[in-house]
Amino acid sequence: MTPENLMKQIDFIKEIDKVKYIQRKTKLFNSNRNENDAEHSWHLAMMAMVLAEHSNMPVDLLKVIKMVLIHDIVEIDAGDTFIYDVQKNHSNTEEERLAAQRIFGMLPGEQSEELIAIWEEFEAGETHEAKFARTMDRLEPLLQNTSNNGGTWNEFGVSYEKVYEKKSIMNEGSAAIWKYAEQLINESLERGILKKG
Amino acid sequence: MTPENLMKQIDFIKEIDKVKYIQRKTKLFNSNRNENDAEHSWHLAMMAMVLAEHSNMPVDLLKVIKMVLIHDIVEIDAGDTFIYDVQKNHSNTEEERLAAQRIFGMLPGEQSEELIAIWEEFEAGETHEAKFARTMDRLEPLLQNTSNNGGTWNEFGVSYEKVYEKKSIMNEGSAAIWKYAEQLINESLERGILKKG
Repeated sequence: MTPENLMKQIDFIKEIDKVKYIQRKTKLFNSNRNENDAEHSWHLAMMAMVLAEHSNMPVDLLKVIKMVLIHDIVEIDAGDTFIYDVQKNHSNTEEERLAAQRIFGMLPGEQSEELIAIWEEFEAGETHEAKFARTMDRLEPLLQNTSNNGGTWNEFGVSYEKVYEKKSIMNEGSAAIWKYAEQLINESLERGILKKG
Repeated sequence: MTPENLMKQIDFIKEIDKVKYIQRKTKLFNSNRNENDAEHSWHLAMMAMVLAEHSNMPVDLLKVIKMVLIHDIVEIDAGDTFIYDVQKNHSNTEEERLAAQRIFGMLPGEQSEELIAIWEEFEAGETHEAKFARTMDRLEPLLQNTSNNGGTWNEFGVSYEKVYEKKSIMNEGSAAIWKYAEQLINESLERGILKKG
C-alpha cells in the first residue's frame, strides 16, 4: 500500500500542473508569446540562484527559491492579477488566501503549514528572503518589457511614474539590482518605449 | 557603472529564456499540449521540495533543486533527446558538455564552475542528490503518460519492458517512490495503455 503522505503529495503534484496554463500579461524575451506562471516561476528561481550575492542582506537561498517556486500557485484558483491593475489590488486578497489553504492544504499537515507560511511571508514582504524574492519578481518583467520595445507598458499604457513607483521597491531587496533597474527604466524613457504620464 | 558580475548574470538570465521554447515529447497532464523544458524543470523542483522525505538517504535539498532547475539548460544548444531514443544516447554527449561550458560559462568564474559541477554531478548520477534528482526526472513523465492513456509510450511504441528498465533506476533514489511507480507501470499494463514488447 502506498503511504498516505506520498498519495497526498502525488495529488498535489498533479494539481499544480494547472500553473502551466495560467497566462501572464508579459511576453517572453524578444517575443510575442505570453509567459505562463510555471515558466515565470522557473525563471525567478534561476535568477535568485545566480543573483543572491547582490541581496542587501544575507538570505537563506533555499527559502527564497521555495518562495518564488510557489508564489503564483494560488492563481490556479484566484487567477493572474496584472500588477498595474487599478481595480484589483494584487496583494493578499481573500480569494488568494482561500486558494493557498485549498491547494497547499492538499499536502500532509506539516508540509501544508510550511508552504502556507512561506507563501504568506512572501506576500507580507517583510523578511530579507521575501524582499529579495520580490526583487526577482519585479526584475523579470522589466527585462522582458525592455527587450520587447516596451511590452506591457505600451500595450496597457503604463506611465514612467507608475513603473518607477512599482519597481523602486526592488531597492529593499537589493540596492545594486535596483540601481541597474533604475538605469533601465530611465533608458527606456530616453528610447521612447516608456512615456511620462 | 553596473558591476561586471551583474552584467554577466543578466546576460545569462536572458540567454536561458530559450529553455521555454524547448519542447519535450511528453504532454502535460490530461492534455494534448507538449511540455517545455522550463515547465518541466519547475515541476521537478516542486516535486523535489515535497517528496524529499522519501529519499533513501538524507539529501541537501538546495543542491537537488539546483540540479533539476538547471539539468536541461544544455538543451538550448544540444536539443531534447527522447529517453527511449535508440540512435542517440541521452547521457553526457560531447555536444551537451560543450553546451554546459558555453552557457554556464557566461556566468562569473566561480559561479560558472559551480553550475557546471552540479550539472556534471546530476549527469553522473552517483551522489545521493543526483540519484534523488534523477528519480524526480523519471517520475514526472510516468505520471503524465498514465494520465494521458499511455502518452508517449503509445505514440512511439515503447514496450513495458523498456519502460520498466528505464524507470527502475528510481529505486536508487527512493525505494518508496519506486514501489509506487512500479505499481503504476503494472497497472498500465493491466489497463492496456502499456504493452509487452
